[in-house]
Amino acid sequence: MFELLKTDPSSNARLGRLTTAHGVVDTPVFMSVGTQGSVKAIDPRELRELGTQIILGNTYHLNIRPGLEIIRAAGGLHRFINWPLPILTDSGGFQVFSLATIRKIQPHGVQFRSHLDGSLLFLGPKEAMEIQRILGSDIAMVFDDCPPHTSTPREFRAAVDRTMRWAAECREQPRAEGQMVFGIVQGGVNKELREECAKALIALKFDGYAIGGVSVGEPEPEMMRAVELTEPFLPADRPRYAMGLGTPAQMVELVARGVDMFDCVLPTRVARNGTAFTRKGSISIKAGAWKSDFGPIDTTCDCFACKNFTRAYLRHLLNVGEILGLRMLSVHNTRMFVKVMEEIRAAIANGTFAEFRKEFVANYVPTQKVLLARAAAAER
Amino acid sequence: MFELLKTDPSSNARLGRLTTAHGVVDTPVFMSVGTQGSVKAIDPRELRELGTQIILGNTYHLNIRPGLEIIRAAGGLHRFINWPLPILTDSGGFQVFSLATIRKIQPHGVQFRSHLDGSLLFLGPKEAMEIQRILGSDIAMVFDDCPPHTSTPREFRAAVDRTMRWAAECREQPRAEGQMVFGIVQGGVNKELREECAKALIALKFDGYAIGGVSVGEPEPEMMRAVELTEPFLPADRPRYAMGLGTPAQMVELVARGVDMFDCVLPTRVARNGTAFTRKGSISIKAGAWKSDFGPIDTTCDCFACKNFTRAYLRHLLNVGEILGLRMLSVHNTRMFVKVMEEIRAAIANGTFAEFRKEFVANYVPTQKVLLARAAAAER
Repeated sequence: MFELLKTDPSSNARLGRLTTAHGVVDTPVFMSVGTQGSVKAIDPRELRELGTQIILGNTYHLNIRPGLEIIRAAGGLHRFINWPLPILTDSGGFQVFSLATIRKIQPHGVQFRSHLDGSLLFLGPKEAMEIQRILGSDIAMVFDDCPPHTSTPREFRAAVDRTMRWAAECREQPRAEGQMVFGIVQGGVNKELREECAKALIALKFDGYAIGGVSVGEPEPEMMRAVELTEPFLPADRPRYAMGLGTPAQMVELVARGVDMFDCVLPTRVARNGTAFTRKGSISIKAGAWKSDFGPIDTTCDCFACKNFTRAYLRHLLNVGEILGLRMLSVHNTRMFVKVMEEIRAAIANGTFAEFRKEFVANYVPTQKVLLARAAAAER
Repeated sequence: MFELLKTDPSSNARLGRLTTAHGVVDTPVFMSVGTQGSVKAIDPRELRELGTQIILGNTYHLNIRPGLEIIRAAGGLHRFINWPLPILTDSGGFQVFSLATIRKIQPHGVQFRSHLDGSLLFLGPKEAMEIQRILGSDIAMVFDDCPPHTSTPREFRAAVDRTMRWAAECREQPRAEGQMVFGIVQGGVNKELREECAKALIALKFDGYAIGGVSVGEPEPEMMRAVELTEPFLPADRPRYAMGLGTPAQMVELVARGVDMFDCVLPTRVARNGTAFTRKGSISIKAGAWKSDFGPIDTTCDCFACKNFTRAYLRHLLNVGEILGLRMLSVHNTRMFVKVMEEIRAAIANGTFAEFRKEFVANYVPTQKVLLARAAAAER
């Protein structure tokens, strides 16, 4: 299901192709996050126009609202949300550990209270896989234990033990037709734990492997280290997915470290605050500097927003609270993330990834605001 | 500039064609309201796809934000907002009397404090026409005095006097190239005042005539009466515009009373509360009744929302606060209003307007919620 087409001689970057039940995904790929069945503020036509190949859905959220019975009756998540291309579903593990209140970890899952109405729920390997089977996603994720980056060595150890045990349980559950299942490697920045967890998962022969325990508020060097400690153990013939990451420059650096798949709420989240990504870093479109700027957000961008609207107009829309403003920034930012991946793929194919990486990272200056938003993305 | 193509034998309904500097408008027409330079939540491509011929902009709001200098620098309102089709601008009179605080009516206009930051501003015939000249709208409205429907006879008299005097002043101001100017008839439900005001305006030879002093919180019979008291005096060869109205059934009844042009915030305003218009009246898409309803909002509708999404999905989006939900209801509701006008035009052309009117009004049951929203629309 995954073909490794080319590897970059200057780094661990890879060009690949993942074939799913709902179509082919060229990697490296950025996956837009549609937590509750919608990539925030963007419609499916816009998503396709901007080159989206695959989106995410979330087991925890969709199971609470609208509830599984409605999605089952609709004929699965693709049909419910009218998205005919591939979908990856997160298992809900992340949310159980970050969002739910009054958790009680048990051998086969977690009892918790819904963040919404406090109702008592249980999610474990069996439940998470069953929900994902009914959602009918193309890629299901195992139910893991994702501890905060500030956990003690003992807590990291326990999380890895649970993650390995639960992964084995997930592996045994029934799947939707053609559904792939990815394992998730935990272990913080502990070399031995990452290695042990990776090897245990690989022995279970998953269709792909995710690097978890990142995008949980850790500083960038720790995030890079977690990936570097995991990647060497992952098989070359399976896709690798760094969960919840990152800024454009971080994604370029993570591709160079062997990552094939990314998801992040950043493009749409910061759009709602008026922040736009450009090749040189992110800018606040609300700033007075743009009040009479009749150029597009980014002159190199081909998105609907850049083809149709000026910074001055978008600034006005954001300042008066018109929804079209945040809509257009969501489209632009998502296009930017997708386009960076298109350029990465072209560079690997052409053998120019080393130059691309150097130039991209040198030109890109992330703002403090976006780095803070990334930290907040851990609450996704 | 206005051709009267056909009149309905059963009523005062008219089929017409208005040629503006930015294209032709078939009447009767529903004009979408883009108060601050955006029809709320809808982009220009969507507006064109749903058959929008002309949109509104607002002098009061656009003059405050982004301010005239920015729109002038952009090359006018059409270019600033990227809308190449006709635009009608309201003069700001309505907002000065409904929104601004601490008004001081003077001979040549009104001194008031901005509802936004309390800054001291002045708007009168000269200023309103100058702003509209720079906005470059296809149709400019005169600056009028629009009193609440609860005003005393003395207040209505004073408002009509001012409206007539200010209309004459507006008539003398320079215009943008090809810009039409419409007069606005005031006078509440007083027969003599409406007649006097209409005749005074007609003597000034405007390009069209609006019926003002409606959509100010008055009950429906008063609204209909205000139109009935005005229409007989309006020249047949000029378009008639009922300001700020109405529900779909009200628009059908107003067309029957000789009105050619409508604008209303209802379609987009109630969309943001989860209310959708259908041929049988309005419904709340948030209602539990639709949780497993996999049909479109309205089976007879051809809008993007009805072609792509189910009631069940839209209900979910609205219930979890996803922007796509209110976006799609805004598109659907606006399409509904535009489509009613298309059907009215076809019925007048075919000589079947009497049947159309009877059937439409009999089938349409407005909900209390929408009637209340219409009253609130007076705050537009």
